[in-house]
Amino acid sequence: MTTTIMAKEAKQSPDVIREQLSANKPVCEAIASKLKAIKPNLVFLIGRGSSDHAGVYAKYLFEVELGLPVSSAAPSVSGVFNQTLSLKNSVAIVISQSGRSPDILKKTERAKAGGAFTIALVNDETSPLANMVDAVLPLRAGPEKAVAATKSYLATLSALCQLCATWSENNSLLEGLDALPNAMAEVISHPAQLSAEKLKDTRNAVVLGRGFGYAVGREVALKLKEVLSIHAEAFSSAEFIHGPVTLVENELQIINLPVDDESKPFHDEIIKDVERRGAELQTIDIGSPALHKRLLPLLTLQRFYLDIEAIAVELGLNPDTPPGLNKVTETH
Amino acid sequence: MTTTIMAKEAKQSPDVIREQLSANKPVCEAIASKLKAIKPNLVFLIGRGSSDHAGVYAKYLFEVELGLPVSSAAPSVSGVFNQTLSLKNSVAIVISQSGRSPDILKKTERAKAGGAFTIALVNDETSPLANMVDAVLPLRAGPEKAVAATKSYLATLSALCQLCATWSENNSLLEGLDALPNAMAEVISHPAQLSAEKLKDTRNAVVLGRGFGYAVGREVALKLKEVLSIHAEAFSSAEFIHGPVTLVENELQIINLPVDDESKPFHDEIIKDVERRGAELQTIDIGSPALHKRLLPLLTLQRFYLDIEAIAVELGLNPDTPPGLNKVTETH
Repeated sequence: MTTTIMAKEAKQSPDVIREQLSANKPVCEAIASKLKAIKPNLVFLIGRGSSDHAGVYAKYLFEVELGLPVSSAAPSVSGVFNQTLSLKNSVAIVISQSGRSPDILKKTERAKAGGAFTIALVNDETSPLANMVDAVLPLRAGPEKAVAATKSYLATLSALCQLCATWSENNSLLEGLDALPNAMAEVISHPAQLSAEKLKDTRNAVVLGRGFGYAVGREVALKLKEVLSIHAEAFSSAEFIHGPVTLVENELQIINLPVDDESKPFHDEIIKDVERRGAELQTIDIGSPALHKRLLPLLTLQRFYLDIEAIAVELGLNPDTPPGLNKVTETH
Repeated sequence: MTTTIMAKEAKQSPDVIREQLSANKPVCEAIASKLKAIKPNLVFLIGRGSSDHAGVYAKYLFEVELGLPVSSAAPSVSGVFNQTLSLKNSVAIVISQSGRSPDILKKTERAKAGGAFTIALVNDETSPLANMVDAVLPLRAGPEKAVAATKSYLATLSALCQLCATWSENNSLLEGLDALPNAMAEVISHPAQLSAEKLKDTRNAVVLGRGFGYAVGREVALKLKEVLSIHAEAFSSAEFIHGPVTLVENELQIINLPVDDESKPFHDEIIKDVERRGAELQTIDIGSPALHKRLLPLLTLQRFYLDIEAIAVELGLNPDTPPGLNKVTETH
C-alpha cells in the first residue's frame, strides 16, 4: 500500500508543531511585549481559503480568551472597492501559507496604511508578505506538497494559540501547548471514525459544531469538498436551527463535531433534535483527553485529516491532486 | 390561482420601504447626530439567520462607505463562553425581526456592558430588545406571516442604507433611497429569471456574488434551502476559486448574482472561468437601472423572492410553511 503525500504530511503535524512551539517561543514573547505596549482595541484578520477558516478559530480564541473584538477582512473592500479602513490601535493578523496572493498583499498594505500593527503568520518567510509586515510569526510547517493543506493548517492554529497565550499570559494554555504534540500523536494511533461506506454516495452534507467546533467545522467542510467532492457546508449548530434545518427533511448526512468545552451541552441538545428529525449522523469525537480545552479541536482535525485521506484512497480518488485545484491560488 | 402569503408580502416591499424611509428620516437624523458625537472606531453587528445575512450587507456598506471596520458577533462568545468584549467607542447594531431571541438579547446586554452604544433595527417595537438598547430604528415592515422573510429583510437593508447615508452625509445615497421604491415596483413587473425546469431536480447548488452581491447571495442561499429544500451555499466568487471550485467537476448548478458596481469585472471573469469548467449557470441580472449602485442588490432580491415563490408553487410546494420551520426561532 502506497502512502499518499496527504497522509504523510498530516502525520508530520505533531513533530512540526513541537519544533514550531520551541523555535517560536522568543518570537511570540517579542511580539507579545509589543502588543502589550500597543494595547490594541481590535484584532483584524486577513486570510482566504483554509487561512480564512483558521481566522474563524482565531476569532473565537481572541474574543473568548482576550475579550477583544475580532473582525475578519472582506478582501474586496480594499481590492475591489478601493477603501482603506481606519485601523488605528488595531492589530492585523495576516494568515497565508505562500504569502503571495495579490489580494492578501493589497489588504495587508491597506491595513498598514489604516494604522494597524501588522503580524504575518506565514509558511514562506521569504515571501513578499513577510517583507511587508511589522512582525513575522513563522509557521515552520516545512514544504507542503499535497493540494489539501493539513500540517500547515494545524500549525497555524498552534501558532495562534501560542501568540494568544503569550500575549494574555495564560499559563494553563501555554502548558496545554507543551502537551499538544504528544496528544496529537496519540490521536494518530487511534482507529478511524468516519466510514467510506456512509460517504461513498453522499453528494451533499452538513458539518455541525459550536464555537471552536464550528471553527474547525469550516475546515472540515472545505476538505470534504476538495478531497471527496462532497458539497459540505459548515454551520454553528445554533445557526443551523434558524432555517437550514429544513434540509433534514430530505435525508441529510451530518458530520457532527462535538468539543468537550463550554459548548457541549448546547451543541448536544441540538444534535439530539436533529437526530429526532431523521438526519443521518457521523461523529468525530476525540473524547476528553487531559488537554487544555481550546486545543481539543486540533485533535479533532488531526483525526479527520487521516480519516478523509483513507476514505479517498478507498474510493479510488487521489487526495493529493483534487480535480481543478492548484496549490497556490491567486485572486485579485 | 391563489396568491401565497409569501408573494403578497414580497410585493408589499416597495410600499413598506417608501413609508419606512419617510417615517424614519427624523429617527435616523437623531441617531446620526449621536454617532457623529461618539465617533465610533468599530461597528459591531449582532444577528442570526436572515438578520445575520443582513449583517453581511451591513459589513460591506459601513466598511466601503464609512471606512470603519465591522465585526460580526459570534453569539456563543457571550451566550456559551460567558465573555464580555471590550467595546468602548463601538456602536453595536442589533438586527432582529422579533426582538425576542434569548441569545440576541444576551449578546446585546453584553455589548452594552462592554461599553458599546447600542442600536436595534427591529420590527416589533414593543419587544424586550427595543427596551434594552440606546436607540431604536424601527423596520416598520408590518406583520409578516410567511415563514420565509421577504419584506422585513428588504426593509432591513433599506434601513441600514438610510442610517449609513444619514450618518456619512452621503447625499447621492439618500437620493438613491428616494428612487428605490419605484425601482423595486418596476422590477416586480418584470418577467421571471429563474426556471423551475432547471431547479426541479437540483439537490445542491452554489450561489456566487462578489462584495454586495455576495452579501445578498447569503440570503438567496438560505431561501433556496428554506423554500425549495435545495442545499445551496453562497460564496464570494473570489473565495470560491480557493478550493470549493472542485465541486464543478461533478456538474454543479450555480446561481449567479452579478451587480453592476465596482465588483463586476472581477466577478464576471471568475464566472467565465467557472462556465468553462462546465458548471450550469442561472443568472439573476437586473441590469443597470438608473439607481445608486449600493441599492442594486435590493432589486436582485426583490426579483429573486418572486421567482422562487413561483417555482415553489409550480413544483407543488407551499412556500408559506416550509417543513420543520417556525417563524420565530429561539436559541440559547
